[in-house]
Amino acid sequence: MGYNCLREACIITIGDELLQGYTIDTNSAWLGKNLNNYNIRVQRKLTIADELDVIQHELSMALDEYDLIFVTGGLGPTLDDVTQTAIKNILDADLEFDENYYNELKQKFAVRKMKMPPNNRSQAMVINGTKVIPNSLGTARGIHIQKGETHLFSMPGVPTEMKGMFNEYIIENYLPKVKKESIALIRTTGIIESNLAEKIKEQIDEFSDRYSFSYLPKFTGVDFKIRQDSPCELGLDTVSNYFFEWLSPYAYGWENETLESVLASQLISKGLTLSVAESCTGGLISKRLTDVAGSSSFFLGGMIAYSNDIKMNQLDVSTELLKKDGAVSHSVAKAMAESIKVITKSDIGIATTGISGPSGGTDAKPVGLVYIAISYKKNVWVKEFNFFPKRLIHREITSQTALNMVRKVINE
Amino acid sequence: MGYNCLREACIITIGDELLQGYTIDTNSAWLGKNLNNYNIRVQRKLTIADELDVIQHELSMALDEYDLIFVTGGLGPTLDDVTQTAIKNILDADLEFDENYYNELKQKFAVRKMKMPPNNRSQAMVINGTKVIPNSLGTARGIHIQKGETHLFSMPGVPTEMKGMFNEYIIENYLPKVKKESIALIRTTGIIESNLAEKIKEQIDEFSDRYSFSYLPKFTGVDFKIRQDSPCELGLDTVSNYFFEWLSPYAYGWENETLESVLASQLISKGLTLSVAESCTGGLISKRLTDVAGSSSFFLGGMIAYSNDIKMNQLDVSTELLKKDGAVSHSVAKAMAESIKVITKSDIGIATTGISGPSGGTDAKPVGLVYIAISYKKNVWVKEFNFFPKRLIHREITSQTALNMVRKVINE
Repeated sequence: MGYNCLREACIITIGDELLQGYTIDTNSAWLGKNLNNYNIRVQRKLTIADELDVIQHELSMALDEYDLIFVTGGLGPTLDDVTQTAIKNILDADLEFDENYYNELKQKFAVRKMKMPPNNRSQAMVINGTKVIPNSLGTARGIHIQKGETHLFSMPGVPTEMKGMFNEYIIENYLPKVKKESIALIRTTGIIESNLAEKIKEQIDEFSDRYSFSYLPKFTGVDFKIRQDSPCELGLDTVSNYFFEWLSPYAYGWENETLESVLASQLISKGLTLSVAESCTGGLISKRLTDVAGSSSFFLGGMIAYSNDIKMNQLDVSTELLKKDGAVSHSVAKAMAESIKVITKSDIGIATTGISGPSGGTDAKPVGLVYIAISYKKNVWVKEFNFFPKRLIHREITSQTALNMVRKVINE
Repeated sequence: MGYNCLREACIITIGDELLQGYTIDTNSAWLGKNLNNYNIRVQRKLTIADELDVIQHELSMALDEYDLIFVTGGLGPTLDDVTQTAIKNILDADLEFDENYYNELKQKFAVRKMKMPPNNRSQAMVINGTKVIPNSLGTARGIHIQKGETHLFSMPGVPTEMKGMFNEYIIENYLPKVKKESIALIRTTGIIESNLAEKIKEQIDEFSDRYSFSYLPKFTGVDFKIRQDSPCELGLDTVSNYFFEWLSPYAYGWENETLESVLASQLISKGLTLSVAESCTGGLISKRLTDVAGSSSFFLGGMIAYSNDIKMNQLDVSTELLKKDGAVSHSVAKAMAESIKVITKSDIGIATTGISGPSGGTDAKPVGLVYIAISYKKNVWVKEFNFFPKRLIHREITSQTALNMVRKVINE
């Protein structure tokens, strides 16, 4: 563990749905990331079933071994939610009925013009000797156990409710006030992991006695993580800025930034507007751009030109071009990008046309082929790619590459 | 565990990035779900750091306690990948250099016109006494340990590579051939968990001695899971079909189906085409529809009318209407849906206009307000909603509700 790690923490998530894969656990990643910001390193993450004896056993063990235990799941109103009983048994404590909260609950339902289902009554029970963690976003309250310096926080599995409790109760009352950053994360795209490692091999060697480095490869790029392990005359900020430069032009942003959020800031600061004509990506580029709050100040809109009719009638792509070169071609991508720029009067037009599969491929134009065009000022850049021929991945990589092309073009 | 559970399994995922939340673990959910199909129930999921001693300890423990152990992560070419060493130490075995594979690796890079980075050499090492799991999608091969009836499969953390190994090697060689389904999952939308529970309370009581039931609430709906625990004269198929009916009209599909995939099948079988005019959802509805393979047979395309100019110029929404009622209004939603249907000559037009936030809200039109319109045949249905006022959640719920409105309209 790093020299500046303050507390030993573990996360326990409860639910058959997590073990059997019906739900992907995003809570523990969120918790891990946020605890990092408080210099609390999660050592262990455990997922167990909705079974009373297993929950009791693991929570007891964790109370003996860790300073901070974060538990999610099993607090809902339905029968399979048994965390409360497990905690009651561990503490050998009684339940008390909280009349005030029961009335509050009824009120919550009344406001939404609903009758409270009888199942929800169990949510007004409190275990003696524990504190209640308020829930501003739902009906299930959390349970806080303190045993000396050890804290266990049991929260609902619903992500927003868990996050609300963490932000409103746990940070406020039980986390160290000072936020020390000992980790930096640089996001890159357009280069594979081993080439990235090769590119900065010497620099890594230079810093490896005081810093540790790791790579997090994804289809859309590799994230590069820098952790300060011991004090160094060059602080984390300086070192990570160096690495950002060494990783150019592949590095596009820092942790918590996405390619679309970085691009959005750049477009806004340059006063440029953007529009999109999407065929194979089918709305994904527009979706990603409008995920960014405030996107209406640079994103005008666009067209999903999935059918040839829309390419012809709405985007004025000529029938001859479509016949001669086909919808998936250099010339059609170019025409689409130019056209959407003119139609919407934007500064930049993006276009995609390709074959994401699974069907639609031929020998000459296999699944995976895609053309991306960027129209900006008097130029149009068109590139041909053969990306991984699985539909969802293909669309993801295509959208990433298109956004990255815009980033490069406007920064040249 | 259920009566028909064949093997005891656990999943161990390795990586600091998982503990610290830089990567969300989707592998274990995928494994859990797929193992379910072979009647293998995952009892425990554990995530640990890239630390040699921790990995050794936990893998040894698992080898003693479980029949099947699935390990992901730590097999890449970079320095933080230590799973191979951990396994070598546990078995007290030597490493052998696999010349053939090394040449294959070089070839793989050559085909992509790249020089193999020296880092990748470690991927040609094999631990004596283990089997190699081939990797058709990447460079890191897996490790298979067999000790009597116990199997440990160590795979890369990259999801497609892990899935490839599971599908091509593990299923083929080590999983029981017969696929017994003992679980059904019904997906619902438009009703909250406790009301859903209330609606089928009596039916659940009737079956609860042989079946167990659970609820998986999400923002976009509640999934309802049925598990057969003991033999019953009414089989799982029959019982789950009953529940599907009892849960109508909220039930829209089964496990592995999404609202968009269900809707796609219905549109295709009815021979209907669809187009979309999106304002606040900014491409999300189009993106979801085109996530479905084969969507070009019903989805024509659409417009992202983010700016008022596009609403006026491309969707022919009148300037007066926009001035009088504002872009977020009943009348503009209606005009957008009608217009996109006419322009694209589709059977159904969908439109959304709303305020997803964080800014843009007023007292009269707060963040969260949204209008959804469906134009079909001679009718237009327009509904006003106030959804959860967080941008990404708001967009998610809006897209879900719009697709569900189409589902209802075409099935009436």
